[in-house]
Amino acid sequence: MSDWELLELTQQETTQLDAPYLIFNGDIDDESFSKTGRGIVDWCPDRVAGQMRLPGGTLDIGVPYLSVAEAVEKGVRSFVIGITPIGGQMPVHWYPVVVEAIEAGIDIVSGLHSRLTDIPEFVEAASRSGARLIDIRVPPRGIPVGSGEKRSGKRVLMVGTDCAVGKKYSALALTRALTGLGINATFRATGQTGIMIAGNGIAVDAVVADFISGAAELLSPANDDDHWDVIEGQGSLFNPGYAAVSLGLMHGSQPDALVICHEATLTQILGWPEYSIPSLDECMETNLRMARLTNPDVRIAGLSINTSKLAENKRGQYLDDLSKEMGLPCSDPMIDGALAIAESIRDI
Amino acid sequence: MSDWELLELTQQETTQLDAPYLIFNGDIDDESFSKTGRGIVDWCPDRVAGQMRLPGGTLDIGVPYLSVAEAVEKGVRSFVIGITPIGGQMPVHWYPVVVEAIEAGIDIVSGLHSRLTDIPEFVEAASRSGARLIDIRVPPRGIPVGSGEKRSGKRVLMVGTDCAVGKKYSALALTRALTGLGINATFRATGQTGIMIAGNGIAVDAVVADFISGAAELLSPANDDDHWDVIEGQGSLFNPGYAAVSLGLMHGSQPDALVICHEATLTQILGWPEYSIPSLDECMETNLRMARLTNPDVRIAGLSINTSKLAENKRGQYLDDLSKEMGLPCSDPMIDGALAIAESIRDI
Repeated sequence: MSDWELLELTQQETTQLDAPYLIFNGDIDDESFSKTGRGIVDWCPDRVAGQMRLPGGTLDIGVPYLSVAEAVEKGVRSFVIGITPIGGQMPVHWYPVVVEAIEAGIDIVSGLHSRLTDIPEFVEAASRSGARLIDIRVPPRGIPVGSGEKRSGKRVLMVGTDCAVGKKYSALALTRALTGLGINATFRATGQTGIMIAGNGIAVDAVVADFISGAAELLSPANDDDHWDVIEGQGSLFNPGYAAVSLGLMHGSQPDALVICHEATLTQILGWPEYSIPSLDECMETNLRMARLTNPDVRIAGLSINTSKLAENKRGQYLDDLSKEMGLPCSDPMIDGALAIAESIRDI
Repeated sequence: MSDWELLELTQQETTQLDAPYLIFNGDIDDESFSKTGRGIVDWCPDRVAGQMRLPGGTLDIGVPYLSVAEAVEKGVRSFVIGITPIGGQMPVHWYPVVVEAIEAGIDIVSGLHSRLTDIPEFVEAASRSGARLIDIRVPPRGIPVGSGEKRSGKRVLMVGTDCAVGKKYSALALTRALTGLGINATFRATGQTGIMIAGNGIAVDAVVADFISGAAELLSPANDDDHWDVIEGQGSLFNPGYAAVSLGLMHGSQPDALVICHEATLTQILGWPEYSIPSLDECMETNLRMARLTNPDVRIAGLSINTSKLAENKRGQYLDDLSKEMGLPCSDPMIDGALAIAESIRDI
């Protein structure tokens, strides 16, 4: 059975993960690799039953340690690889415990570059137990070309002056703030960690070019008129490598509102030193122009700014000044949450 | 051996086809399916040794009929499927002659939806003879993320008010016109028929989203300072399904010049009836805005208009009026060629 056939049997329209999770940290001893696992524990503690590490590993993401046998007892459905080793390949000495989990009928969930379905031991064990091998980087099959048809419900999309400026975090904080205001809202994941947190989604950057806007349509399907999908952005229209992903995601999302995400001190596109970060005005104007194709009424709901590199006593003033200058709510979701932006969305 | 491994062994950076071709028309009896074969004969007769049809087939693209044995004698290197049967699958009764060609060491070149490498008879025969199975829709492996780095040489990209408005034809006509002016110019193919004509290229719409601009960079590599790459466009920034492809292709192409391609009578996006064709002004402005990211000096070289649906006695006036209104050369490449646009490019 080829990878593709296996996927066809095991995946629906979007990638779907079953909770609760056992988060696997391998034998990693560098705290900086724990971001994914910690993100899952922070944003969806209800989906997490425990963690596991191998001898030599030191990460502790603050949930109970479980063996595979204990995980089975607790009803664990997914063994989630919570860290990315250097090079993105799974080390061979991790295989035995992964096989043990597969044999116990637990799905394996991985965002590694190397595919679970390329490892014969895993495929064989899965064919016996019925557990799924879910490579989050591999998009589901059967994604259509975007239809462009208007659908019910409302959508807000995170867009950025660059990649890696806090779009996922902003979307999660905004979803929390909207829910806090009593608004029905769902976080929609477009990248690996987001998918693990949400339990479903599509890694849109791995979708074939012709189908990006179609993938975005699947991600935020028709919904109640007063429901908001809060869509994790990807890339940036100003990134010479990844702008295509951003545009397809935007067109398929048909956003009613955009949140501009930015890192306060950034001047150059990360990894493309010849490219400057656009001004916030240019960023807003270009994003609005391109988004109007599929939603002529799109507007900017606010700016979500990562101010972590500003001096602590300057952040408040920076955000206040920016808010006045732009006439829009501006907040740092790590500090203030996203209440002001949520309130601006409520009024749309 | 999986498809991917096979591709890794058989393809380089761009898809490369060896000439001369034997163009295969199967048992098709509907003239409207002969466009690809005719395009190849029209635009690159030097690459074509002959054609082949099966009993029941009636297509004649005006080159000698050859059997596989005769093709071998003539030094044919590629057996090119020149037609697309309904549904895009290869009929089983075509298999024997394809296997015969493979066994004779001739590469098979296909743009069908079904993959050559999924047909075990073909894979087995190819493993014996060393012939390549080239699925043009499958992009080569190892395409990098776009670097955005400026490279030498000049580039002109076809962009459109919609898909299917004549971008390939415009690029071919412009390449011919530039060459006629003594300018070094190369047609760069981004779609199936274009790749068969050029003998190389990448089907950019089949590339994974993250790598579209990188694919475009491979397609038009660094060149002599006075050399022009004439790049076949794909999609349109105004098409809600395919705009992402267009943007990635644009960013990777770093065009010095754009040619706006349009069908004179079109009012709605083909296949998306709720979407209007943009005005030519809006089309130019949006394309320039987005292209400036990777080439701030980009300009519009002219408009290439398909006037075939206008009354014959109105076409000249239409083009003259448009040219005056826009202050740019406007021509129909089917009627006038692309000399005026080529002259405008010479002056850049």
